[in-house]
Amino acid sequence: MEKLKTELLIIGAGPAGLGAAIYAARSALDFLVVDKFLAGGQIVTTEFIENYPGFRGNISGYDLMQNIIEHCKDFNINLRENTVINKIQPPKQNINKIGKSNLENIFKCFGDELEITANSIIIATGASPKRLFVEGENEFIGKGISFCATCDGALYNDKEVMVIGGGNTAIQEALFLVKFAKTVYIVHRRNQLRAVKSLQLKAFSNPKIKFIWDSVVEKFDGSTHVEEVTLKNIKTNKITVKKIDGVFEYIGIKPNSELVKDIVDLDEQGFILTNKNLRTSMAGIFAAGDVRDTVLRQVITAVADGAVAATSADKYLNNLL
Amino acid sequence: MEKLKTELLIIGAGPAGLGAAIYAARSALDFLVVDKFLAGGQIVTTEFIENYPGFRGNISGYDLMQNIIEHCKDFNINLRENTVINKIQPPKQNINKIGKSNLENIFKCFGDELEITANSIIIATGASPKRLFVEGENEFIGKGISFCATCDGALYNDKEVMVIGGGNTAIQEALFLVKFAKTVYIVHRRNQLRAVKSLQLKAFSNPKIKFIWDSVVEKFDGSTHVEEVTLKNIKTNKITVKKIDGVFEYIGIKPNSELVKDIVDLDEQGFILTNKNLRTSMAGIFAAGDVRDTVLRQVITAVADGAVAATSADKYLNNLL
Repeated sequence: MEKLKTELLIIGAGPAGLGAAIYAARSALDFLVVDKFLAGGQIVTTEFIENYPGFRGNISGYDLMQNIIEHCKDFNINLRENTVINKIQPPKQNINKIGKSNLENIFKCFGDELEITANSIIIATGASPKRLFVEGENEFIGKGISFCATCDGALYNDKEVMVIGGGNTAIQEALFLVKFAKTVYIVHRRNQLRAVKSLQLKAFSNPKIKFIWDSVVEKFDGSTHVEEVTLKNIKTNKITVKKIDGVFEYIGIKPNSELVKDIVDLDEQGFILTNKNLRTSMAGIFAAGDVRDTVLRQVITAVADGAVAATSADKYLNNLL
Repeated sequence: MEKLKTELLIIGAGPAGLGAAIYAARSALDFLVVDKFLAGGQIVTTEFIENYPGFRGNISGYDLMQNIIEHCKDFNINLRENTVINKIQPPKQNINKIGKSNLENIFKCFGDELEITANSIIIATGASPKRLFVEGENEFIGKGISFCATCDGALYNDKEVMVIGGGNTAIQEALFLVKFAKTVYIVHRRNQLRAVKSLQLKAFSNPKIKFIWDSVVEKFDGSTHVEEVTLKNIKTNKITVKKIDGVFEYIGIKPNSELVKDIVDLDEQGFILTNKNLRTSMAGIFAAGDVRDTVLRQVITAVADGAVAATSADKYLNNLL
């Protein structure tokens, strides 16, 4: 069993975790970043990022994150990839604000053959879009199948796109996509929307939006990019094949907050509740990026969250927060 | 009198305003950015930025902002420099949330020989550090005189630096600087600190921190970089000249919120109060970056604020917020 000790453990090496790492390095903290897979986060599968200010043109998610990873390496950050943390055991009595040093608070973090004791933790484990799990989906994610209209909508100027879902986000994003696309097909498995009335009214009155009711996706086809969607009407069992330029899946998003669900407060959907300093309900644990209750899930906002969380962790470790 | 009309007026073209512009452009909003001076913001005078993730090495504030300005130009944003807005007249009755379209809300913004009618506004006017206004200060700002230890502290490894001020921020930043600097001199005009007790105790017990009481700065000298500070003891009138590698002025920061002080709620120090969506107390007016009640004032957080504010303004204009 390997044992490590650190002032700050950053869990997750996507945009939020790496943003936190750069700020922790600049604060000369003793810290460690772990990721269950490789550094970069889910954004590495995104074709083009047009909206990380300062990086012009069509930089890929992979290349943007390589820049940020190299930036971290300049600071000699201690990054362990392929390292899963399974359990966090908080201090028996959390002594924040009762006159002793926060450095006496010890979180024990357990992985496979690994135990890390940390004085503070930043949770930057991100969120995962819920998936359809149909044929062709894996193949075309980042190649025409997207989970983010704010990210990719502008790439479909005058094109035909499809939105899968009927909730608030699906309709909101469909209403965003009509600014660019010629037609937005909304595919929903029921014959009415779950979205709030005001959104429904807007969607129904928009001539660019067309509804495909009672239908589910059977599979995606294409060559280098998605080109066709096979749909099944679940009432009639009729199969239809539609030509399409892009697909946006909005069947929900799931925060990766399993690890801390019993020790910090979550909202109804499982996102970690944070205050202005990105502190969670437990002193010493901070959250940054998509895993928290944020209003916008973008690379730029996740990186900035990381900066705030690391700065707050530094203050906490110095008994200033 | 020139008259313009826009859905969204962004006031200020620093990191927050330009971050907002990129997101407004990607949302296909009809918008206009104005700056009283040139685009880029106060950060253009900073020597090196090491902590805008993705930009490695010693990029200057000027070069970073040129990248972001060029990024904006790729989206053909409508930017008017040297354009002062003197007054904002809100709609007589703000009709947000009473069943009518937010596009019927009209703010009238008055400049010199200019009137802009806007359906929504993002205030991104920044904040200005309070200044000493002594000889040599102008000359060496960005050349050894800094207003931000988080930004520039790491540049003074094993060097001698001076902090001017005795409040919370001054002491907090001095405690940050000891991680790098050999000695941190704190120069304060009184013989006791204004900072909270816990900070005082930390500072007094740190062997790297030395206090110069009852003293004010008379002038700064140097060649290409600040090298000497002339101090006067205000009780004895004794003049001392100290060799120094860097100076951090922390005599306060002043939000540039004058324009909206009568129409939105401010905190005690004049920073604009915002909610999670960066909405101010008035529907249709948003705030981003240093001018608002944020916990961290950095380029990355200001740019991210811009992204959030623009996304919120887009939702507001579509009656979704």
